[in-house]
Amino acid sequence: MLKVESYIEEKAKVVHSELKRYMENLQGVPQPLKESMTYSLLAGGKRLRPILVLASAEAVGGKEENALPFACAVEMIHTYSLIHDDLPAMDDDDFRRGNPTNHKVYGEAMAILAGDALLTKAFGIMTEGLKEVNLPYEIGLDLLRECSIRVGAEGMVGGQVKDILAEGQGVSLETLQDIHRSKTGDLITFSIRLGAVVGGAKESELHSLTGYAERLGLAFQIQDDILDVIGDQNKIGKPVGSDEGKNKSTYPALLGLEASKEWVQTLVKEAKDLVVSLDEVQSDRLLMIADYLTVRDK
Amino acid sequence: MLKVESYIEEKAKVVHSELKRYMENLQGVPQPLKESMTYSLLAGGKRLRPILVLASAEAVGGKEENALPFACAVEMIHTYSLIHDDLPAMDDDDFRRGNPTNHKVYGEAMAILAGDALLTKAFGIMTEGLKEVNLPYEIGLDLLRECSIRVGAEGMVGGQVKDILAEGQGVSLETLQDIHRSKTGDLITFSIRLGAVVGGAKESELHSLTGYAERLGLAFQIQDDILDVIGDQNKIGKPVGSDEGKNKSTYPALLGLEASKEWVQTLVKEAKDLVVSLDEVQSDRLLMIADYLTVRDK
Repeated sequence: MLKVESYIEEKAKVVHSELKRYMENLQGVPQPLKESMTYSLLAGGKRLRPILVLASAEAVGGKEENALPFACAVEMIHTYSLIHDDLPAMDDDDFRRGNPTNHKVYGEAMAILAGDALLTKAFGIMTEGLKEVNLPYEIGLDLLRECSIRVGAEGMVGGQVKDILAEGQGVSLETLQDIHRSKTGDLITFSIRLGAVVGGAKESELHSLTGYAERLGLAFQIQDDILDVIGDQNKIGKPVGSDEGKNKSTYPALLGLEASKEWVQTLVKEAKDLVVSLDEVQSDRLLMIADYLTVRDK
Repeated sequence: MLKVESYIEEKAKVVHSELKRYMENLQGVPQPLKESMTYSLLAGGKRLRPILVLASAEAVGGKEENALPFACAVEMIHTYSLIHDDLPAMDDDDFRRGNPTNHKVYGEAMAILAGDALLTKAFGIMTEGLKEVNLPYEIGLDLLRECSIRVGAEGMVGGQVKDILAEGQGVSLETLQDIHRSKTGDLITFSIRLGAVVGGAKESELHSLTGYAERLGLAFQIQDDILDVIGDQNKIGKPVGSDEGKNKSTYPALLGLEASKEWVQTLVKEAKDLVVSLDEVQSDRLLMIADYLTVRDK
């Protein structure tokens, strides 16, 4: 197994157990709601976002235990967004990561409420996490405010709306990038910035890590589109070509497959250069993760 | 016009303009999402929760301008919960306050996302508000954490699930109270506690105001059930008897109409007594609001 894969597997396990603990510790929650939340949260997946939180915190010298609540919070936000995106009124997906989607198992009402509850819990966990780290008041509050912007109407939720509005329409490369910058990029960028701030990053480090994050987020999305064309259905957990079937604009469709692959390489190189330039940052894991994104097959 | 009604009308206007300002200031949000959020947020309603935030803050000597962001945040949370509750998968309501519900105007996908965005924005606004008030870090964070608990799986969202599970079943008075404590009570209690803490309440004051809030929340719910039996459809904005039609358990159905009315009176008296007992609290408005709840007809 590659070094990066064992790192990701190890950290995914840490995140998984902690997410499980949060679910088990919920007090006075009706059983079907708890089950519905837990079902999607513990369904697996790459755990990319929480791992980015941990890797980013450690890169600037922070402790994993301090970053862990924030890692779990972003995974809850990611999971809530997937549950709501899969709903019949939205993407109407029956499967996610090879398993029936939340509403197929628990019904639409419970799926909507499980999403609501995961989003709400994420903010609670971040406030708990902030009490444990030694950050100035303003900086802690700014993190929560940034979260609200990056995952709300001005970020992720707005991106989902843009995506819905663009469906069935030929969009320009610029529009496609704008959709992804908010729909998937904002949470990825936030994950890395969150880890960095909690880990005690300096302003200049935060700036470079943000650049790394933005390139990584875009590369990740392009690679997702590429895998939808050339991937292995068993590995990606959904039928290959499903974007095309839905008449969705993708990078391979707009740019061609080769140019898309090249762009991923360029973005990853730029991302890595930004991190390498930081003297006091332990860049190994962030470099590994950036490389991993170009070779992953799921 | 009664003194309390003009107070409520005046404060509702203050809250309305501020909510409008928040919506206008949203940056880079797709127009349909912005419209959908604004539609429900500015649809009117009693504005009970934000007014409780303001009244509670002022009662303990706080400034209205400091409490206003928090008042707007709880109204956004309340509005998000109404949008999601009205969805076809949940209560499937076509009208709210006499107007078509959000999903009837903007479609289900947009309604789900507008709710998500309002909830997310609420947390952002509270963090901004906390930067303006002079509170110890821990207390500020504890408020956000309490919000997450009271409106999430352990509170309001859990209450909605309990309500769904109880539908069509005869429930005991104890179960009914438990449903309402989380479904509607938790946000009302949080509104009053939020205003009190932001306004600078002492521990003993906060304790009594919490007792006031819990009684008010219950009285409010019982009165809602009473109005569903005896109210004026034009004033309450939905058909009279709609709870019975849905086979929902209500206080009048379990206790009888007269006993329900008496219970409201008892709860309001207890709530008022708790506030009156506080020496340094300007109780006038809180007493007025408690009385208003028993005489309101919508």
